[in-house]
Amino acid sequence: MITSNANPRVKQVVLWQTKAKERRSAGVFLAEGFKMFDEAPEGWIQEVYVSAEALNKIERNSEVWAKLERVGYETVTAEVFRKMSDTQTPQGILCVVKRPEYVLEELLTAERPLLLVLEGLQDPGNLGTIVRTGEGAGVTGIIVSAGTVDMYHPKTIRSTMGSIYRVPFVCADDLGEVMDRMGEKGIRTYAAHLNGKKYYDSFSFCEGSAFLIGNEGAGLGRELAEKADEFLKIPMEGQVESLNAAVAASLLMYEAHRQRHVTGM
Amino acid sequence: MITSNANPRVKQVVLWQTKAKERRSAGVFLAEGFKMFDEAPEGWIQEVYVSAEALNKIERNSEVWAKLERVGYETVTAEVFRKMSDTQTPQGILCVVKRPEYVLEELLTAERPLLLVLEGLQDPGNLGTIVRTGEGAGVTGIIVSAGTVDMYHPKTIRSTMGSIYRVPFVCADDLGEVMDRMGEKGIRTYAAHLNGKKYYDSFSFCEGSAFLIGNEGAGLGRELAEKADEFLKIPMEGQVESLNAAVAASLLMYEAHRQRHVTGM
Repeated sequence: MITSNANPRVKQVVLWQTKAKERRSAGVFLAEGFKMFDEAPEGWIQEVYVSAEALNKIERNSEVWAKLERVGYETVTAEVFRKMSDTQTPQGILCVVKRPEYVLEELLTAERPLLLVLEGLQDPGNLGTIVRTGEGAGVTGIIVSAGTVDMYHPKTIRSTMGSIYRVPFVCADDLGEVMDRMGEKGIRTYAAHLNGKKYYDSFSFCEGSAFLIGNEGAGLGRELAEKADEFLKIPMEGQVESLNAAVAASLLMYEAHRQRHVTGM
Repeated sequence: MITSNANPRVKQVVLWQTKAKERRSAGVFLAEGFKMFDEAPEGWIQEVYVSAEALNKIERNSEVWAKLERVGYETVTAEVFRKMSDTQTPQGILCVVKRPEYVLEELLTAERPLLLVLEGLQDPGNLGTIVRTGEGAGVTGIIVSAGTVDMYHPKTIRSTMGSIYRVPFVCADDLGEVMDRMGEKGIRTYAAHLNGKKYYDSFSFCEGSAFLIGNEGAGLGRELAEKADEFLKIPMEGQVESLNAAVAASLLMYEAHRQRHVTGM
């Protein structure tokens, strides 16, 4: 049992919690809580830390216990766990997870791809919520710009509620190039934009489609927006000028879901 | 100009930032930033604080300047403003706003009401996002349970992006009683619930409708859910078990918007 905050493994986890660079160079991310442990693919789990209290509460004939036994774990004191944790009321279990590696080409060649292109999102909670909703709506992949908040930020991970393990995504240095490749593959690109003339539910998203969502404050950059095949808008009553980025993305993804299922395709 | 953090007005604002009880007993809330000042109904504004830096940047022939002159304001130093502010990078303008008073009866007797009933939501950002999206989707009112996070929490206010000024809402001690009154008015109530058998887009929300949304973790309480006229579900692909509360609310509200506009009613 690890009992000291000075333990090098504890210090390493704290670094991974706070420094995106450290996480990246190690090729890992951190996933806290029982749901995140439960849903983590076993081959991805590198280390597991459990507080003594949490360990005592796990039933010995449970799935969680069996998985812990299979992947191995380290027990830590409650105090050490609090130090390692990113949350205010830690559940007492934390995994170090190997990052998945997805390839853009595969995202673009899925059958009837339904993609999201996220440019410069800054709120990790928004990003995680988009990944979660994306899985729910049947999105086949997500492409984020280099300027978007870290997909492996602890708050992003938490907000995905496990979808981080299942939705393929890539980070692209040059979204313009990605757009060109989408064009070659026949994927239609739709920019959610205040200048849109047609409402989002007047397009068909049954064939390969990609939605472009911009930064929470500034919206989509002009350069990227101009590369889109179509501008679309979401109707807004009252004096509302824009919607939260995760809400806008969700409405578009679920409209695509609705169309793809209504038509029986 | 206020130059000291010990100034009683500064201390009062700090109390209002942090203590829901203090805000409530004074009948006020705080709204930060230029957008929130700009959209605040003049009759609601009680006090305005502007940092010297922010004041210098306001053009003298602007709308903002004219409004400041009309409602009156107090200048404070940058340091004092940082103390008063709830944000990490304050814009330098903060209003003390009188709370609006809405009456449940009026919410229930709107023409073809489109209502949200929120039970026990805990995330102020989610609540604010729901108010913002609600205005966009044409919601006529929001009813929150007493156990829901404070509608006047600084993070809620910020997330509403100004919709707090325009969407009528009430806090109800007994949501069950509210449900009974909705029944009397012929408002159909729909619980977003995992036990729902029919998808949300298979109902008509063109007549008076209310959506029930529960707590982020636990969902709707059984007692309230059982009072609903219908259970509905949102389709979810993959392993997604639920959606973020604000996302779920947004999908329902915009489905109602879509129906109410498609049918030309």
